Amino acid sequence: MEIPAQHAAHMARAVELARLGHGTTSPNPVVGCVVLDAGGQVVGEGFHAYAGGPHAEVVALAQAGERARGGTAYVTLEPCDHTGRTAPCSLALLDAGVARVVVAVSDPNPQAAGGAERLRAHGVEVLSGVLAEEAERVNEEWLTLVRLGRPHVTWKFAATLDGRSAAEDGTSKWITSPEARADVHRLRAAADVIMAGIGTVLADDPHLTARPERPHAERTSVERVPLRVVVDSEARTPQTARVLDDAAPTLVAVAADTGTELKADLLRLPRHDGGLDLRALLRELAARGVVSVFLEGGPTLAGAFVAQGLVDRVVAYLAPALLGSGPAALGAAGVCTISELHRLTFDDISPVGPDVRLVARFTPDSDREK
Amino acid sequence: MEIPAQHAAHMARAVELARLGHGTTSPNPVVGCVVLDAGGQVVGEGFHAYAGGPHAEVVALAQAGERARGGTAYVTLEPCDHTGRTAPCSLALLDAGVARVVVAVSDPNPQAAGGAERLRAHGVEVLSGVLAEEAERVNEEWLTLVRLGRPHVTWKFAATLDGRSAAEDGTSKWITSPEARADVHRLRAAADVIMAGIGTVLADDPHLTARPERPHAERTSVERVPLRVVVDSEARTPQTARVLDDAAPTLVAVAADTGTELKADLLRLPRHDGGLDLRALLRELAARGVVSVFLEGGPTLAGAFVAQGLVDRVVAYLAPALLGSGPAALGAAGVCTISELHRLTFDDISPVGPDVRLVARFTPDSDREK
Repeated sequence: MEIPAQHAAHMARAVELARLGHGTTSPNPVVGCVVLDAGGQVVGEGFHAYAGGPHAEVVALAQAGERARGGTAYVTLEPCDHTGRTAPCSLALLDAGVARVVVAVSDPNPQAAGGAERLRAHGVEVLSGVLAEEAERVNEEWLTLVRLGRPHVTWKFAATLDGRSAAEDGTSKWITSPEARADVHRLRAAADVIMAGIGTVLADDPHLTARPERPHAERTSVERVPLRVVVDSEARTPQTARVLDDAAPTLVAVAADTGTELKADLLRLPRHDGGLDLRALLRELAARGVVSVFLEGGPTLAGAFVAQGLVDRVVAYLAPALLGSGPAALGAAGVCTISELHRLTFDDISPVGPDVRLVARFTPDSDREK
Repeated sequence: MEIPAQHAAHMARAVELARLGHGTTSPNPVVGCVVLDAGGQVVGEGFHAYAGGPHAEVVALAQAGERARGGTAYVTLEPCDHTGRTAPCSLALLDAGVARVVVAVSDPNPQAAGGAERLRAHGVEVLSGVLAEEAERVNEEWLTLVRLGRPHVTWKFAATLDGRSAAEDGTSKWITSPEARADVHRLRAAADVIMAGIGTVLADDPHLTARPERPHAERTSVERVPLRVVVDSEARTPQTARVLDDAAPTLVAVAADTGTELKADLLRLPRHDGGLDLRALLRELAARGVVSVFLEGGPTLAGAFVAQGLVDRVVAYLAPALLGSGPAALGAAGVCTISELHRLTFDDISPVGPDVRLVARFTPDSDREK
């Protein structure tokens, strides 16, 4: 399909708007919308900011008012056709009298899809697939949830150039820079869940809270605190662990057959392969409205996630430093020979202070869930 | 010192010229020279291309001819004052009648230094330190040799994002891309020595030759082939190893007390710390005119070099891939606890095909030789 340049430009702006909702809309998708009047002038812009709040189309149409009549709406995701906490956006667009709707990504959610069809049935011209890749990217967490039925998982690690996360004696403070650590807090703040394994809890006693320098949620009226999840099959989390303080809610995932006195929110799960059933864990989290998980290790848990094809994105902070011994960032990940290598694609390579941040993703169409 | 902008601009060009000699001038430094006439017009440019060939100043002055009289010469390294295979450049500059010489880096070589002094004594204005950092950088191999009495060592490794160079079963072909491997050949071609340990020779049977797509030496009249060096204390190199073919000369460094029937150029060295005395090895290579060593591992040899502070630069090719097990790129490097971490500085971060190349250097003033 040949896409007129102005379509791409307006959709790029809609994607930019969608991004503003990133990290605060769960369990909803991020959506951006730009409305033009019949003459092609921008008369409304909007994005979805938080679940229960108005949808992007509604915000943009409200801004446009009567000027939307006969105009064009650019929406990053196919307008919903169902009544949830708010009325269907397809109806709002019809009511506003727009003549054309340009969509980036079709709604893969069967409950909400059908918006394009309803619009067409009412004589609105609908164009689909404009800037689809960019719009997919900005919504990748939610699209993962809808398509795979589990939250999107980002595995983050910090290591030396030779891939080690601690020295031989277990000390690790600090391999990466304050700038890299601030960047981690920013990413944590945009996630629904911050997750770590019991090994990390016992070794480092991490707080697993998001303390971004500029709070990500300042734009919304809803206070969001990521849920902390400890993967701890034998319930070894100490009652005094920082992760159990009252700074944020915490869920301790334990084996269903583990007897424990631990005073904490427990999630009892089946065992799998010497650990917990991670698929069951992710399903449980999805049922609780979790769209994105920020996995912080350690190596054993990260290895299990990677081995089972449950990691979507890797964020590596590498310090210009060498250790040569000590624990590796990633433990056994189900690879015996080189042909089984887990292949990704670099998505972003950026210096962060004196360190480098490498973002890589698994190709979404690879048949990697095992 | 306040440096007039035109000085920096002309010196930047001289540094660019110097770079053209990179990899072909050993055991000499790279040097670039720009000559201006009395009116400030560029009338000559030159660089040192190979040992025994004319020095940069001589090339530039020859091009300038009579127009150099009363003019200015920009030289990246203090003009030599001794007669080697060619006459002192200080005399050539005096003969040409230049009024001013602008120098980036003073010559740390006591045999050749004194050029600035002789020029001043003859009434030539001499300005030093212009763009010194850039000029140091382009000449870092040779400056390392002169200052530390040993060749400059670049350790290169290719690994996954989690720092592994092979899978659990030892297979490693190919972790990085053809583009990354082509880049390695380019760097090999610019080195005097390509070095590997016996572990790598036994595991991979590497050829250790430079096969750049565009031969680096095409600009010079001298055919240069990097010397291959195998660090092999017990002389276990198989007689049929590819590294012993006739594609390039090869030196096998063995322990002085090792009895061996191996038919190869042997370099007998003292033992040190369970391996060979690497300082003695580098001294021997320096004595043979080696300025730069390209060390290709494996992990044990690289760890020993790093532990002893004998690595100057690290070039890491990281593939967007994960292994989780298998040999690490770097073996024991003398670090027990995090405060002993080897710290470097990133110098360059570049995508190379689907991979990333990270270049890091040890800060030259750190007291790290142990």
